[in-house]
Amino acid sequence: MTAPIDFYFDFSSPYGYFASTRIDDIAQKYGRYVIWHPILLGVVFKTTGSSPLPSIPLKGDYCWRDFERTSEFNHIDYKRPTHFPLPTRHAARAMLWLQNNHGADVATAFAKAVYRALFVDDINIAEPAELAKLAEPLGVDPIAMNEGANNYQIKDQLKAEIDVAMAKGVFGSPFVIVDGEPFWGFDRFDQVEAYLKSRRQTELRAVGGNELNKEKKPA
Amino acid sequence: MTAPIDFYFDFSSPYGYFASTRIDDIAQKYGRYVIWHPILLGVVFKTTGSSPLPSIPLKGDYCWRDFERTSEFNHIDYKRPTHFPLPTRHAARAMLWLQNNHGADVATAFAKAVYRALFVDDINIAEPAELAKLAEPLGVDPIAMNEGANNYQIKDQLKAEIDVAMAKGVFGSPFVIVDGEPFWGFDRFDQVEAYLKSRRQTELRAVGGNELNKEKKPA
Repeated sequence: MTAPIDFYFDFSSPYGYFASTRIDDIAQKYGRYVIWHPILLGVVFKTTGSSPLPSIPLKGDYCWRDFERTSEFNHIDYKRPTHFPLPTRHAARAMLWLQNNHGADVATAFAKAVYRALFVDDINIAEPAELAKLAEPLGVDPIAMNEGANNYQIKDQLKAEIDVAMAKGVFGSPFVIVDGEPFWGFDRFDQVEAYLKSRRQTELRAVGGNELNKEKKPA
Repeated sequence: MTAPIDFYFDFSSPYGYFASTRIDDIAQKYGRYVIWHPILLGVVFKTTGSSPLPSIPLKGDYCWRDFERTSEFNHIDYKRPTHFPLPTRHAARAMLWLQNNHGADVATAFAKAVYRALFVDDINIAEPAELAKLAEPLGVDPIAMNEGANNYQIKDQLKAEIDVAMAKGVFGSPFVIVDGEPFWGFDRFDQVEAYLKSRRQTELRAVGGNELNKEKKPA
């Protein structure tokens, strides 16, 4: 089996949202599993000295246009959110709590629902009550989730997860690491796919090589 | 005829170099001409608060890897320059002087030679003597060029050109504007091409429409 892919994202990142609609399909195509890591760009930006894209002079106006155009170019549903920028701490912590208590697949389904709520249905995902509504259809007790997201263990875990991510070189959203190879941005997904393909071919050759070795053994 | 495409770049920008190897071919495919605009990111960054990519914590290490990988992915010659970062003021001014005195095509040929010198042949393009060597094969008097690049008129022109660029929303390199539509980054070249294609189709339909109108006229 091949190693999982690490996918880092902030819930307020439009390019992270675009990436979230594709990453599982790309991985599956090459026999991989994706580990979803919510991070907080606000914490990362303290190290890199960056600011949220829409708040940067000149870049800000451009990026709203680029979000729109990039969504159309890639046929991804998107509607400019009115609640923006907004804090994503609670959503990230809720997702960690789900990973801990309901497993990775439920947590990932929740993450996809949160992204869609913000970037398609214009829902204020900073509101715990809105997150509760997204959790319920997944068979999750929303009160337990929101309480869990507020406890110290989860808060400390999120901080530590972001430290780990930065130690691995993560500085933006989306950020993908495949077998140690880092890729920043939704616009690197063509290279992510090319890389996965080349790794897959190496792997298949290795399997072929083992079979040849077996044949060399006396029967 | 269709309007020219504006292409903005800083000579020290690796993604600008990648773009410089493609922009004329893409434009030509859709019957367009490219106007090359050298800018200075140092001046632009005073407005946006950005820094050169390689100097940003975490991002710096990543970007060198991305330059390498993106050049391979796109089959573009590239060798990591040892003279980096380096001032590009003189190269930009020399290019403007060439535009003024030898025309756009000679100036563009010079720009391509400067980019290749820096990102393939590892030449220190901050040195006027090196720029002189690149200008000579183009039939340019290198002494006149270097003197011209130092005069006040050219210095003022470069400042004004950068102000114009920023007024149009330019904040990075490469930056392309097609019929008012802005595209930032070499990784938007697929969208630039899609946009040019759609404009071309609109144009052809318009021509077709005119011909239909003509046919309606009594012969």
